[in-house]
Amino acid sequence: MNATIICIGDELLIGQTINTNAAVIGEALSANQVKVHKSVVVGDEEAPILEEFASAWNSSNIVFVTGGLGPTHDDITRTVITKFFNTELIENEIVLQDIKDRFQSLNRVMVKINEEQALVPAVAEAIRNSRGTAPGFWIEKDGKIFIATPGVPFEMRTMLESFIIPRIQKLTEFNDSYTSQKTLLTTGIPESTLFFKLGNLDALLEGAKLAFLPSPMGVKMRVTVTEANRNDAESKLTGIEQKIRAIAGKYIYGTGTDDLAQVVGKLLAERNLTIAIAESCTGGHISDRITDFGGSSNYFERGVISYSNAAKVEILKVDEDALAEHGAVSYEVARQMAAGIKSISGTDIGLSITGILGPGGGSEAKPVGTVFIGFCDSSVCSSIKLQFGNDRIINKERAAQAALNYLRKSILGISPDE
Amino acid sequence: MNATIICIGDELLIGQTINTNAAVIGEALSANQVKVHKSVVVGDEEAPILEEFASAWNSSNIVFVTGGLGPTHDDITRTVITKFFNTELIENEIVLQDIKDRFQSLNRVMVKINEEQALVPAVAEAIRNSRGTAPGFWIEKDGKIFIATPGVPFEMRTMLESFIIPRIQKLTEFNDSYTSQKTLLTTGIPESTLFFKLGNLDALLEGAKLAFLPSPMGVKMRVTVTEANRNDAESKLTGIEQKIRAIAGKYIYGTGTDDLAQVVGKLLAERNLTIAIAESCTGGHISDRITDFGGSSNYFERGVISYSNAAKVEILKVDEDALAEHGAVSYEVARQMAAGIKSISGTDIGLSITGILGPGGGSEAKPVGTVFIGFCDSSVCSSIKLQFGNDRIINKERAAQAALNYLRKSILGISPDE
Repeated sequence: MNATIICIGDELLIGQTINTNAAVIGEALSANQVKVHKSVVVGDEEAPILEEFASAWNSSNIVFVTGGLGPTHDDITRTVITKFFNTELIENEIVLQDIKDRFQSLNRVMVKINEEQALVPAVAEAIRNSRGTAPGFWIEKDGKIFIATPGVPFEMRTMLESFIIPRIQKLTEFNDSYTSQKTLLTTGIPESTLFFKLGNLDALLEGAKLAFLPSPMGVKMRVTVTEANRNDAESKLTGIEQKIRAIAGKYIYGTGTDDLAQVVGKLLAERNLTIAIAESCTGGHISDRITDFGGSSNYFERGVISYSNAAKVEILKVDEDALAEHGAVSYEVARQMAAGIKSISGTDIGLSITGILGPGGGSEAKPVGTVFIGFCDSSVCSSIKLQFGNDRIINKERAAQAALNYLRKSILGISPDE
Repeated sequence: MNATIICIGDELLIGQTINTNAAVIGEALSANQVKVHKSVVVGDEEAPILEEFASAWNSSNIVFVTGGLGPTHDDITRTVITKFFNTELIENEIVLQDIKDRFQSLNRVMVKINEEQALVPAVAEAIRNSRGTAPGFWIEKDGKIFIATPGVPFEMRTMLESFIIPRIQKLTEFNDSYTSQKTLLTTGIPESTLFFKLGNLDALLEGAKLAFLPSPMGVKMRVTVTEANRNDAESKLTGIEQKIRAIAGKYIYGTGTDDLAQVVGKLLAERNLTIAIAESCTGGHISDRITDFGGSSNYFERGVISYSNAAKVEILKVDEDALAEHGAVSYEVARQMAAGIKSISGTDIGLSITGILGPGGGSEAKPVGTVFIGFCDSSVCSSIKLQFGNDRIINKERAAQAALNYLRKSILGISPDE
């Protein structure tokens, strides 16, 4: 079963809004045996919308439309759907009651344009909206399915999870093939090195597909297996994953949508370890990522952003002579920062980072992109040096990712050189 | 002049990667007199890519393709371009030298697949890649333009800014109408309140267009003016902006792609003020945003992420009795955190935040989403309370944005209630 996603809205075309809806829908459909073969964005104009409806309806089993269902003048999706299916709008009593209840609970006065949101194309079943006023539509015709939801991400997502995906799961239950997919996440190793290490891919994959997805944060490897049934697909996928892990396991920090900060958080929690972090160049980015996850207060005790040398000396007890002799961006100061934050916090681990992210501040000996990371636990205190590029923001992200990876390797006893 | 954007990659279809490239390209083209009328994503397969090339080439003046130019087996865009233009691949010496230089400067061994990246379709001009190994392509044929870049966002963006946009600007110089657009950024005011304050929109706009774009970070207002020439368009746009600012100026913190953290940084720099920040619930997110901008070390002195109560007492000198009496999430502790960070840092301003972002930790008196922000300068120490929702990450972003806005208002002498 395949699908086309159509997102409607000028704001997407001119880049004012990033199209997260297409990613969320694509992920949900793919995870439920629907192959998304195309995703389109068109503006708020009738002719191009009609054209995309016709093309998608012709080439796909499922057409998933989002956006343009709101109450204002530039929302024309419902009108175009009515025209496309040659149908009419009928007031839906359940939807009307939902809208009335919503306005009452918010203590707001309902106006005519709100009431008109209860009009639903006669061929459609309404998808109720628990987080807004515009209903979605579910249309079945000629063995195909046409779905429309509002473009507001959390309204779309709620309809997707509570109504659309459960329906699709019923439809795909008896498919005659099953696709299973897994993404292995690496960092700290270049794409070409990884590719080279894996050797003969045909022998490794036996007909499965492997895609390399590089970014400044690392290289993802996505394995896709299609077999006659779920069992066969999943067991073949597991076999391939084991072979890849046997070769490149130490570079793989997680799978799927895992975040390295979350992975590291789990390692700390499992081992009952606490951590405190001293950041200079990353300005709080590492701690920010660590605390993105609920329960992080169980292992993250505190952080210090020692941007100035005074902060390094006063809070972290870095030696002024070491600053003078080696400079703030050095092996020695990174080590002292890690030792200092561990000592004042009473945690099991101290992690630190200091560097020059740019655009200014570089020198011949320490060009922009030079970063030192320090790590201390009860038995060792060490620091490493890394060299990144010239873009401040990308350097910040890469430096934070490298620090989290150094932490991961240190906890797992993997050498930082590997 | 119009354009179609085609992004290639299974990872976009299955939602593994969010399509930021389409937004960046859409924004750059729109800002340079090219109307993006469609944006498409297709997977790494020849037939659908060829189909989209043909359809886009037929309907558009410019076809902008991104993705699938990397060195591995699943990168097929170059092959499909060669087929589409019925041409062949030729080794480009300049590109080959770029790749060699790159590997040398990174001290890495070059392998055959890297060398092959210097092969360029004969009809194309190579766009050199200063940030990676795959070149882009610029093809002119039949009065139309076909552009291809790698999908890695910073490689694409660098080619866009340094090569592609300057070329497009030359082409659109003599268009017979000119569209000018400006986006005014607000935060801390709901869309409906802003809409109501602006009053009669027809009188305000005189035929121009105004779109409201709400998000958890604030409401953007996009004004679009089309006139016969650049002067007329820009002067009308300026007039409308002035009228909007006269009504709602104090809510507007910036324009276009301004970041509130950058805006606040400029205010601090202009006034020669220094700041230190004590964060609890936001875990470093505010300091992280402040330090995203070069030169921030001139005004940002240090930050403390006082996640534990011990850190609040030991580093920030928060009174243990105040913690016991009011709790860590309170007006009083927010004020003491701001006073403490200012005092230990010797800065002009101390900013603080403490709250419950969820999913756990809420109570009836202080539900998830409760946040207090503190501010101290040489003359006042104050704190405010805000209530957000249930999503931890959105709460973090909203809380940081609100703290930066409180800081902005405090510096500018705008009451926090406005």
